[in-house]
Amino acid sequence: MMGRELLVKEVTAGNRRAVARAISLVENEGEDSNALLSALFMHTGRGYRIGITGPPGAGKSTITNKLAKHYRKEGLKVGIIAVDPTSPFTGGALLGDRVRMTDVELDGEVFIRSMASRGSLGGLSRKAKEAADVLDAAGHQIILLETVGVGQSELDIASAADTTVVILVPESGDGIQAMKAGLMEIADFFVLNKADRPGADQAVQSIKTILGFRQHTEATVWMPDVLKAVGSEGKGIDEIAQAIAAHRKSLETSGGLEQKRRRRLEQRIRALVEEQLQVDFWTSDRSEALQRELSRVIERNQTPYELAGRLIADFKNQNEKRGS
Amino acid sequence: MMGRELLVKEVTAGNRRAVARAISLVENEGEDSNALLSALFMHTGRGYRIGITGPPGAGKSTITNKLAKHYRKEGLKVGIIAVDPTSPFTGGALLGDRVRMTDVELDGEVFIRSMASRGSLGGLSRKAKEAADVLDAAGHQIILLETVGVGQSELDIASAADTTVVILVPESGDGIQAMKAGLMEIADFFVLNKADRPGADQAVQSIKTILGFRQHTEATVWMPDVLKAVGSEGKGIDEIAQAIAAHRKSLETSGGLEQKRRRRLEQRIRALVEEQLQVDFWTSDRSEALQRELSRVIERNQTPYELAGRLIADFKNQNEKRGS
Repeated sequence: MMGRELLVKEVTAGNRRAVARAISLVENEGEDSNALLSALFMHTGRGYRIGITGPPGAGKSTITNKLAKHYRKEGLKVGIIAVDPTSPFTGGALLGDRVRMTDVELDGEVFIRSMASRGSLGGLSRKAKEAADVLDAAGHQIILLETVGVGQSELDIASAADTTVVILVPESGDGIQAMKAGLMEIADFFVLNKADRPGADQAVQSIKTILGFRQHTEATVWMPDVLKAVGSEGKGIDEIAQAIAAHRKSLETSGGLEQKRRRRLEQRIRALVEEQLQVDFWTSDRSEALQRELSRVIERNQTPYELAGRLIADFKNQNEKRGS
Repeated sequence: MMGRELLVKEVTAGNRRAVARAISLVENEGEDSNALLSALFMHTGRGYRIGITGPPGAGKSTITNKLAKHYRKEGLKVGIIAVDPTSPFTGGALLGDRVRMTDVELDGEVFIRSMASRGSLGGLSRKAKEAADVLDAAGHQIILLETVGVGQSELDIASAADTTVVILVPESGDGIQAMKAGLMEIADFFVLNKADRPGADQAVQSIKTILGFRQHTEATVWMPDVLKAVGSEGKGIDEIAQAIAAHRKSLETSGGLEQKRRRRLEQRIRALVEEQLQVDFWTSDRSEALQRELSRVIERNQTPYELAGRLIADFKNQNEKRGS
C-alpha cells in the first residue's frame, strides 16, 4: 500500500500507475478519496478540459481518439476520461476499452480511462470530474471528457468542460433530437460526423437553422458553428482542433474561462455540502424511523410531506440538544 | 383564485380544469404546492402507473396514444404525462402537443399533459411524479408516463411506474445501446416498434440474447419478453395491454406491487428531506460566504473540500447556538 502523501507526490510527478491508482480510489469512493482529492486540488487548474458529447453512434470515441493523436503530435500531454453509463449487470464498458486499445492506447502516452456506473448513475458525473482533476494534477495539458449526451448527468459532465463539442450525424431529425436532449445549449460548436453520408449538407443546414433561432434570443460573443468531419478517415480533425483553439482564445480574452471555472467550483462545493448533509442526516436511528413510519404513509395515515417535516424537525432538535 | 381546499375538492371530483390548475401549481413550484400535494396524497394509491420509455424516435407517443385509446374503450379513466426534456430556450414541447391533439386529445376524455424542463432538468423527474399523483387523486385508473429513456432523470421517471415498457426499433445496435443506457434493468417488457421494417426479427433476437444474459445473473419471478408492434397502424397494441395486465397480475400476487410502491414512497421522502435541508442550509448569509471564499479556492489557497467542511461546521454550530 502506498500512503496518501506518496501517492500525491507520484501523481503530480506524472507516474501513470499512480494516476490509475488515484482514479480507482476516486471511482470506488474509498474512505480517503476526499482527502486525496483535496491534496491533489492544489495542483490543478492548468489542464484544458474538452467535452465531447452527442447521441449514441455519432462516432464520439473515434473523434476523441483522433483528437488525442493530434494533440500528442503537438507534444502535449493528453488524457481521456470516457464515461460510459453501462448497465450495472455487465459491470463495465462494453466495447469502448477494447476499441481504444487498438488505437491510441498503444501509443503508451495517452492516459485513457473508461468510467462506467456501478449502481449509482448519479455519482458518475461527480467521479468523472474528479478523475479529470487527477489527470489535471498529473500535468495533462489536454483532458478529453467523452460522454453520451443523452441525459442530465451526461450533460452535466460535458458542460463541466472548458470547451464542449457536440457530435451529430446526418440522420433525419438529428438536429431536433439534439435540441430536445439539451445539446444545443451546451455546444460551443458542432461537428457533423460521417459527413460523407447522404444528407450531410442538409443536416448541417438544419443545425444552422436551429442555431440561428437560438441566436435571436441570446446575445453571445461566441457564435457556435457547424464543422464537417469523417472521423474514421481522420478528415476534419485538424479543423476541430482549430475551432477548439479559437474558442479557448475567445474564452481567455473575454474573461469567460475564469467565470466558467468559478461557476464549476461553486457547483462542486454545493455538491459536497449536499452530500455531507445527507450523510449527517441519515443516521441509523433516523433511517430506522423512516422505515417504521413508512407503513403509516402507505396506509395514508400520514403524507410523505408530513413525515419528511417531522424527520427534519428531529434533526434540528438534535443539533440544538447537542449544543445546549 | 381558487382556495386550496376547494381545489383539492375539485381535483378529487375529477374536474379537468382543476386538475390542469393543480399540475400547473406543481410544475411552477408554487409556494403552496407541497401543501396541495400533501392534501391530495390522501386520495392517491388507486391509479395504475405505466411507464413508456425508449430512445428518441422509437415511436413512444404513438404507442402511448393508442394504449390510451385502448383503455378508454375498456371504460377506464386515463391520463398521460409526457415528459419532454426540451431545450429551455424553446420553452416547451416541440411537436408533442400538437401531434397528440389531433389524436386522442380530441376525445376529450383523456387528460394529457406535456411537461418540459424549464431550466432545471433535475426537478423534472420529481414534478412528473407529482403530476401523476394529481391524476391519481383525480381518479385516473390508468396513468401513462411517457419519457425519453436516455438519462438518469428519465430512467428515474420510468422506473417510478408500476409497469415499465421499453420501446425499441429495429436499428442495428439498438439492443446494445439500450443496454448501455440502462434500459434493460428497468424494462418489465420490451416492444419492438416499427416491426414491419427490415431487421425486425434480428433485433428481437438480439434483445432476447441480451435478456438471456441478464437472466443468468438475476433470478426473478417475472421474465421480460419482447413484443412486436407497428404503432402507427395500431398493430400489437392489444398484445401490449395484455402484457401490462399480466405483469400487473404477477406483481399483485407476488406482493411485488406493494414493495415497489413502498420503495417509491421511501425515495420520495428522502428527496423531500434532501430538498428541505438545502433550503435550510443556503441562507443568504451562507450563500454570500460561499461567494466570498470562492476566490480563495480559485487561487488554490483552500480546497473545495475544506470550504465545504467549514460551511457545514458553521451550519451545525448555528443550530447549536440557537438551542443553547
